[in-house]
Amino acid sequence: MKGLKGYGEGEGKKAADSVEARPEYDCLIHQAVVLTMEPGAAPLENGYVAIRGGCVAAVGAVGTSGELPAAGETLEAEGLLVMPGLVNTHCHAAMVWFRGLADDLPLNRWLREFIFPAEAEWLTPEKAYWGAKLAAAELIRGGVTTVADGYFFEAEVRRALQEAGLRAVLAQGVVDFPAPGVPNPRDNLKTALEFIDTDLTTAGGLVTSTLFCHSPYTCSAETLARAKDLTRTRNLPFFIHLAESRRELVELRERTGFRPTTYLESLGILDELTVAIHAVCLSPDDLAILADRRVKVSHCPESNAKLGVGVAPVPELLARGVTVGLGTDGAGSNNNLDLWGEMSMAARLHKVWRNDPTVLPAAQVVGLATREGARVLGLQDTIGTLTPGQAADLIVLNLRASHLTPRYEPFSHLVYAAGPGDVQHVMVAGRWLMRDRQLLTLEWEEIAARIEVGRRELQTFFRK
Amino acid sequence: MKGLKGYGEGEGKKAADSVEARPEYDCLIHQAVVLTMEPGAAPLENGYVAIRGGCVAAVGAVGTSGELPAAGETLEAEGLLVMPGLVNTHCHAAMVWFRGLADDLPLNRWLREFIFPAEAEWLTPEKAYWGAKLAAAELIRGGVTTVADGYFFEAEVRRALQEAGLRAVLAQGVVDFPAPGVPNPRDNLKTALEFIDTDLTTAGGLVTSTLFCHSPYTCSAETLARAKDLTRTRNLPFFIHLAESRRELVELRERTGFRPTTYLESLGILDELTVAIHAVCLSPDDLAILADRRVKVSHCPESNAKLGVGVAPVPELLARGVTVGLGTDGAGSNNNLDLWGEMSMAARLHKVWRNDPTVLPAAQVVGLATREGARVLGLQDTIGTLTPGQAADLIVLNLRASHLTPRYEPFSHLVYAAGPGDVQHVMVAGRWLMRDRQLLTLEWEEIAARIEVGRRELQTFFRK
Repeated sequence: MKGLKGYGEGEGKKAADSVEARPEYDCLIHQAVVLTMEPGAAPLENGYVAIRGGCVAAVGAVGTSGELPAAGETLEAEGLLVMPGLVNTHCHAAMVWFRGLADDLPLNRWLREFIFPAEAEWLTPEKAYWGAKLAAAELIRGGVTTVADGYFFEAEVRRALQEAGLRAVLAQGVVDFPAPGVPNPRDNLKTALEFIDTDLTTAGGLVTSTLFCHSPYTCSAETLARAKDLTRTRNLPFFIHLAESRRELVELRERTGFRPTTYLESLGILDELTVAIHAVCLSPDDLAILADRRVKVSHCPESNAKLGVGVAPVPELLARGVTVGLGTDGAGSNNNLDLWGEMSMAARLHKVWRNDPTVLPAAQVVGLATREGARVLGLQDTIGTLTPGQAADLIVLNLRASHLTPRYEPFSHLVYAAGPGDVQHVMVAGRWLMRDRQLLTLEWEEIAARIEVGRRELQTFFRK
Repeated sequence: MKGLKGYGEGEGKKAADSVEARPEYDCLIHQAVVLTMEPGAAPLENGYVAIRGGCVAAVGAVGTSGELPAAGETLEAEGLLVMPGLVNTHCHAAMVWFRGLADDLPLNRWLREFIFPAEAEWLTPEKAYWGAKLAAAELIRGGVTTVADGYFFEAEVRRALQEAGLRAVLAQGVVDFPAPGVPNPRDNLKTALEFIDTDLTTAGGLVTSTLFCHSPYTCSAETLARAKDLTRTRNLPFFIHLAESRRELVELRERTGFRPTTYLESLGILDELTVAIHAVCLSPDDLAILADRRVKVSHCPESNAKLGVGVAPVPELLARGVTVGLGTDGAGSNNNLDLWGEMSMAARLHKVWRNDPTVLPAAQVVGLATREGARVLGLQDTIGTLTPGQAADLIVLNLRASHLTPRYEPFSHLVYAAGPGDVQHVMVAGRWLMRDRQLLTLEWEEIAARIEVGRRELQTFFRK
């Protein structure tokens, strides 16, 4: 590995060692600013990332000789930044259909007058598929390489995201009232199990299939316990909206006498495979329980703010060692799938909430959107850092933009100034999904045409 | 005006009426979604905007015949949105030099360890000029057509923004300690007056020159009163940072016994030409005073959040009829000049601050960034709406993007999903400053090279 000082493979294998005389690497990105996102790692100037077989093979700084090893593809990346792809720990991809359909309403009116009727009478498996395709386009263009999705018709969502080439943790929704594709709530766990069992992904595939209990107040104790059992025995993550709003606290206390967290604790739901989404309304006791049980938290600050529900106690969770990632929530409530916006919002919101500008510094926030997000999803051995052996899930940003000039250190720019439009290239498992902002796995014109037809139908539906 | 139903000029003049047989309009943008931003106006689908002599000549919806009048330039804009250019009511343009230089620090450390030393020993008039050029590039690319700037070496900033073709209200900084270009504070008002008197703009020009008192706690009572006199007699806006932080309240109370607002009231500073910037720490009495005196407010939510100083009581100000605009603040503290981010933050932050998702709905927030911003700067008779007779300061956005699909109504998308990268074309006073994201009045490569040289000098300065 001439000219490169780094780690991964010592001097590397020479091309001649290979029977077919293949180049040493499939792809070599060099001359970039490289953020490995390993804990505490400083940015590498004049850095390189070498990729082979879908994995990161070597990372380091280009030596003074400037000599480079052979690679199938060599990408000169001066003025660009390479970092792990972003991890979106909470999304309802197909809900892009409802982006901007109805805003600035009380949560209950929004749900009962718009979302529930549209889901009940307008949404179809095909619409879920095309919605997920649209979501995939936005996710890739914004630099997300892994998304955790929870919704209904999830097999269609899985098909769409697999076609897009994204890494995904997909969770079929479970709720104790009629839902899209599950008219009889008694079938909710059976449907989820079918979804899990029809996952044909082989080892090392990009997809994990699991289930998603909507919330402690919309699922019975029995449903919650049985759903947790199903995922626990399969070693799968278990997703649940937890303590999103004060209204939830009131309703659940009336019904059970518990707070959402203590309720799940009483049912034996909380463990290291549980992902608590939102986690806004937490008492000090709740914090202690989540930390003790090693529950993971998906923090969705833009959605929480827009819905006016509150600010999750993220600094307190982090202080207790809880693993926290960032999520966009669905575009029905956010209204975008932009994790840069979540980074900016998380960094700023917690500062103003505490009157303390030192809370959640930039490098930590970038960590939440990458390395920590991977840990939330149990994928820390596969993604989240640019470390030799990890999957080559990475994004390349263009730093040569007026809003990123001058540059003193990159973390600050990523959190406080960058946006989805700065993402130039996107790779998942060594495969380019976007080059020079052109989507390579999705047909945008077809997606746009399908969405336009569905939008007209939905508007007609609401005019009736 | 065949084929167009709208208002402005009735049937319009025919080209043949003109001695030189000029086309009816200089420019016609048609088939767009048009937001006039007149109060309460609904979006025009299949809309057009006709421009002549630097002004909006006619606005309306294209008729069923589809026939169009003659224009020097005709821009078919299907899938695009036309709206007034954004108005940034508070900026320190030249401080882009300090973007990301030092973040996540207490305000006082940031100022004393980084900003003040750099301003005192590194900043030069030439650097202020090139910083303002860089800022102009970012402002234009983000759809800002009018910026209110306050800083030192302001004549250099004026030169840069005039060359960029932006509309600007420029204010030379006044403070009672040594400042860039004003080593002796006794010269602060003289310097500001020179700046104002060397404004060679003729009537109808793009620039207003005035002054900017830094704050009630950094200017003496005498300085404040004299500065206000200077601007009042010239009918110029008077800018001042007001009640930005609790620390300011404590300091000012110790020195004067007053709160910032009541202090300025006692000095006779507050009137309809005063622009109070930040206005975070306001008591109910302060709110009443600002409303009574018809003071204007520049709201900078991203800066206030990032510095952890608090949330301005904007809903309360609006309820009392106070005119509020949005500002980015300088890139030293924000760290961008992106008014889309301010819209998103304003809409979300006030909702979560009050646990009420109905506060500051999207259409109102777009109003703050356009029409109301114009009123803050006293420019409501020139800009802020697309109304016949107003200046042709407008932006054209590309709606054909995954994150803006589908579209039910445009205001929601502008606030909750759009970003600076969606701005396609920018026009000020009938002149294109950007087309297809290419800057037409600025040489980006030269700006980038100048900034890179200065960045190295600044980093060397801090390493000493």
